[in-house]
Amino acid sequence: MSDTEPVPAAAPAGRKRAGYRRLPVQQRREQLIAVALALFSARPPDEVSLDDVAEASGASRPLVYRYFAGGKQQLYEAALRSAAEELISRFVVPARGTPTEQLGTVLSGYLSFVAEHDAGYAALLRGGSVVETARTSAIVDEVRRTALRRTVRYMGVREPGPRLTLLVRSWISVVEACSLSWLDEGRQLPPAELCDWLVDEFVVMTAATAFHDEQTAEVLAGLLALDGPDGRAARLLGRLAAPHALG
Amino acid sequence: MSDTEPVPAAAPAGRKRAGYRRLPVQQRREQLIAVALALFSARPPDEVSLDDVAEASGASRPLVYRYFAGGKQQLYEAALRSAAEELISRFVVPARGTPTEQLGTVLSGYLSFVAEHDAGYAALLRGGSVVETARTSAIVDEVRRTALRRTVRYMGVREPGPRLTLLVRSWISVVEACSLSWLDEGRQLPPAELCDWLVDEFVVMTAATAFHDEQTAEVLAGLLALDGPDGRAARLLGRLAAPHALG
Repeated sequence: MSDTEPVPAAAPAGRKRAGYRRLPVQQRREQLIAVALALFSARPPDEVSLDDVAEASGASRPLVYRYFAGGKQQLYEAALRSAAEELISRFVVPARGTPTEQLGTVLSGYLSFVAEHDAGYAALLRGGSVVETARTSAIVDEVRRTALRRTVRYMGVREPGPRLTLLVRSWISVVEACSLSWLDEGRQLPPAELCDWLVDEFVVMTAATAFHDEQTAEVLAGLLALDGPDGRAARLLGRLAAPHALG
Repeated sequence: MSDTEPVPAAAPAGRKRAGYRRLPVQQRREQLIAVALALFSARPPDEVSLDDVAEASGASRPLVYRYFAGGKQQLYEAALRSAAEELISRFVVPARGTPTEQLGTVLSGYLSFVAEHDAGYAALLRGGSVVETARTSAIVDEVRRTALRRTVRYMGVREPGPRLTLLVRSWISVVEACSLSWLDEGRQLPPAELCDWLVDEFVVMTAATAFHDEQTAEVLAGLLALDGPDGRAARLLGRLAAPHALG
């Protein structure tokens, strides 16, 4: 492929195709992926056609095929890969703050991503889409594995045992289920409240696992030490002991 | 289709086909589904062929197609539907016992199901299989919705609000993530310990949500009342307040 797109040979001489512009190859590729991602975010992938992508990109259908010979499936995978990279780039823990504050910041970034990719996120995690393949599942799995690795590393653990792995994987699934539930209910709950809830769930799930596992007990002790004796985690656990005070 | 299978027309007169037996129609159908389910449980669906099903059933490939004209895909869906019905039939809460004991019994049934359908369960929930379609996802979704409805009904709630729904959906996803993690790690942890862990997680997740939601606070109060002041739930929550006692 040359550096710039050729003038479309099929362009009728007498008809103005205002939307069709020539773009450098890399720029066009990125543009098509970005447009596809926007469309796949707004609607379930089964409802997005290659023509929709071409039209929204100001490109012709043959041009889209020049870049993505595999058609919609290939374009979907490229868009998904770009979304996965973007999501993983948000898994960065801020340098300052207590552990519960840091966790809240990362979760807030995750929920922004969920809101931006609404229908596409839901369709992807729900499964059964026509564009879902072993390759798309591998991309989703890679995001989950990265989230697991980063969380474990953040906990200061090198070799997570089966119970700590179980805890973190379970909590990641809570984040996903919570995101899906939030979208299904038309995003009724404010994202900040969801983040608070997810942080609380992380603390109590870790605390309950700590009774079953020494490694998790050490992680909890570290978290409580950094969070402080009057920190959010310690206060939450303290309140749980007096459930009659609820309601 | 007549009540009994015809003698296969293609059977060579001089060659004994010891494995091929004539069966009543309904019985053969059920047998094919059961055999398919066993194969789809033992290996990922992508690695199971229609020939495997025919061979393991003592039937010919054309005979399998007589029952399942849609081939492997249709057989997979029938097997999945039968597995889903079986799983839902295990969602029955025993009449006796405290809430935490009842929950443990239901979870134990769930984990037996997971162990029985090992590779098939993992492939299904992981997604991306060639046999996964909107129909198979709908079957899985129906199981999840049933689990949600039954859990909410068990809590004595008629109209679950968004936070209680969020809690129950999240906890169901923990059960699934836990099951997948258990299979991935070669079932290292004894199922009874997993059940204990899942019951504990249910209690603490509910308790943490109760701070955010009055409806959940009522559910927790009801659970604690039935479980007793020295019951498992109350003891767990009491211990959480003294995390320094851990490890």
